[in-house]
Amino acid sequence: MPPLVTLTSDYGARDAFAASIKGVILKINPQVQIIDISNDITPLDIWEGAFTLRSAYKHFPKGTVHLAVVDPGVGSGRRPIIVVTESYYFVGPDNGLFSLIYQDAERLRVHHITSPHYFLPNPGPTFHGRDIFAPVAGWLAKGIPSGNFGDEITDFTKLNIPVPKGTPNSIEGHVVHIDRFGNIITNITYNNIQPLLPDGTDPAAVTVNITGKEIKGLKKFYAEAKPGEPGAIINSSGALEIFLFKQNARMTLSVKRGDIVRLAVPG
Amino acid sequence: MPPLVTLTSDYGARDAFAASIKGVILKINPQVQIIDISNDITPLDIWEGAFTLRSAYKHFPKGTVHLAVVDPGVGSGRRPIIVVTESYYFVGPDNGLFSLIYQDAERLRVHHITSPHYFLPNPGPTFHGRDIFAPVAGWLAKGIPSGNFGDEITDFTKLNIPVPKGTPNSIEGHVVHIDRFGNIITNITYNNIQPLLPDGTDPAAVTVNITGKEIKGLKKFYAEAKPGEPGAIINSSGALEIFLFKQNARMTLSVKRGDIVRLAVPG
Amino acid sequence: MPPLVTLTSDYGARDAFAASIKGVILKINPQVQIIDISNDITPLDIWEGAFTLRSAYKHFPKGTVHLAVVDPGVGSGRRPIIVVTESYYFVGPDNGLFSLIYQDAERLRVHHITSPHYFLPNPGPTFHGRDIFAPVAGWLAKGIPSGNFGDEITDFTKLNIPVPKGTPNSIEGHVVHIDRFGNIITNITYNNIQPLLPDGTDPAAVTVNITGKEIKGLKKFYAEAKPGEPGAIINSSGALEIFLFKQNARMTLSVKRGDIVRLAVPG
Repeated sequence: MPPLVTLTSDYGARDAFAASIKGVILKINPQVQIIDISNDITPLDIWEGAFTLRSAYKHFPKGTVHLAVVDPGVGSGRRPIIVVTESYYFVGPDNGLFSLIYQDAERLRVHHITSPHYFLPNPGPTFHGRDIFAPVAGWLAKGIPSGNFGDEITDFTKLNIPVPKGTPNSIEGHVVHIDRFGNIITNITYNNIQPLLPDGTDPAAVTVNITGKEIKGLKKFYAEAKPGEPGAIINSSGALEIFLFKQNARMTLSVKRGDIVRLAVPG
Repeated sequence: MPPLVTLTSDYGARDAFAASIKGVILKINPQVQIIDISNDITPLDIWEGAFTLRSAYKHFPKGTVHLAVVDPGVGSGRRPIIVVTESYYFVGPDNGLFSLIYQDAERLRVHHITSPHYFLPNPGPTFHGRDIFAPVAGWLAKGIPSGNFGDEITDFTKLNIPVPKGTPNSIEGHVVHIDRFGNIITNITYNNIQPLLPDGTDPAAVTVNITGKEIKGLKKFYAEAKPGEPGAIINSSGALEIFLFKQNARMTLSVKRGDIVRLAVPG
Repeated sequence: MPPLVTLTSDYGARDAFAASIKGVILKINPQVQIIDISNDITPLDIWEGAFTLRSAYKHFPKGTVHLAVVDPGVGSGRRPIIVVTESYYFVGPDNGLFSLIYQDAERLRVHHITSPHYFLPNPGPTFHGRDIFAPVAGWLAKGIPSGNFGDEITDFTKLNIPVPKGTPNSIEGHVVHIDRFGNIITNITYNNIQPLLPDGTDPAAVTVNITGKEIKGLKKFYAEAKPGEPGAIINSSGALEIFLFKQNARMTLSVKRGDIVRLAVPG
């Protein structure tokens, strides 16, 4: 099986940043196949990078090296790290970008990358993606043990991630992402909602409130919603999502990331 | 020869949708090389997906699996299908996305995908690209016969595709696509025009009308047109195209998809 | 080692242009791995294509075939060429797109591609990327000697590239690129600046002037600059770069490509 490296970054598609990273990896390890998770993360938006990486990483084969670079602190004292879980490697800056990986992982080891032996010669101050993270990913994909790159650390950085707050009849969460279609993804999950809906509860009785708008019931698929009327659904990642069938819910509802969402069942 | 899968979708480059699909395919079949045809189809624009897929698919090696997902009806009753032609496989929703393939194909077989054996476990309602179409594409690329996925059907969905109308001296068609450069692609083809131009006819005598503007003659290449003056050309796909040399014809001429185009020769 | 082809173009991600090129290459040479350097070059912007290609090409393994197409003159008399350097092949139009390669190369040979034997049958007038350059790249990657495609030429096209002008205490250059983050890249390099800073010179004494704004000192990394204050840095490509930490310098400073930049040290 050819080794796999994925790339998640805010480097965009117009500049040569992402391509330079791929060249460096392929020079070290020409067998690698490189797949973009996204290079269109909003510049410097660490949360969006964390969310996007989390949406995709677990669909890749065991052993995949996930390289992720959203790195406002490049060149400063922030540490380069390797995260090792039961199934994957992650390479990138220690700025919280891997926070959701830490939540998911059953086993976890984090190494501070310190061995310049694996860097490009004379790394510059503005592009560690190319000069440090890419070659480390290439060598990892070639089988170099993670311990060779530096010592284990335990004080790695975690974003402060709010969790939904529940009462017996309601859950309050917030918008964590808005996708290309304008669908509004929340941090309220199927697992949060399930206890509020004992057997026999009619899902039509659920109400969802967002930016002053009340949505009744949970839909089973997008096309079930009436044209122009917002719907709520448990999406394919198990998250509560607000949508408009064939329309852009973000624009229609004027929603932004961070907005409060409340789901309730009759008391 | 390593198996090839292409991807055509409206998933965009920012979210992790396309990457999740690629991960699923590679988990099933790590030998596959995956090539994006486009993930920037206008959201839910089935025609644009059909047109874009048609522009590229036949340039790929025989046996390529073309995965295409522009899928407003995801999760509803619309059927997932495999289309088998003399040279390729196509996987996606039965909503007309493969209409131009049906036109091109010499031999054609369409299967309704029904066997959950080849799906991800517990497919969700909003992302069949990942949960159904991707694994089916991965297994097809691994050599599973198309018949294993479900029975043949004959009532598959075709878009209503208007054809140009001709008189002995003219053809009326419409704009079917506008590309990144602002070039205006019509459904009038070289084969439509040829009968109007018997040997000895001067191509300079042709006129093309679009949004109230008259264009004289057919150019042989873009740079032949005068700056600021719209030109008409038979492009490399054999279609009549309206352009401005080094400018954006769509913006200058205020043209949109669906607008009428008329080509005429002296009567 | 599997053969590598990179692609640099203004074809964009929405249309099927880039994908058609990839299909053609893979049909000729299914072993190739194809990496996008960028397909989002501003339409017809030859300089941006040249700059972007130069930023990435040297990070790829020796032997890589770099295909580049920004080609306003497609179909006209402008020549298709192969550039052979000590480490790489380049394929594209002879319009200056490879000017920075000519500067970098230690050994250089340029061939005018004339042998239709290696083209797609009946090349059209508007898409030589697909009909001529792609198959030539595919055959080159398969080991066909560059001489087979056509004779060597010496009158290939070079862009007129201004170089920074220096005095003993200053250098005047200009903005050559602005990246996704709004960072402003100049043609003043570390090698230009070095002679102005003999041992013992305090880098804090340097001043950089751009669009009426004076910036004091050179930073060592982005995060060293105060919020809202423009900083100057020698970036990871060795170029003088103007930035705002966590902000967009292009927008804040209203800078565009071509603007004058002057660096000075106390006289």
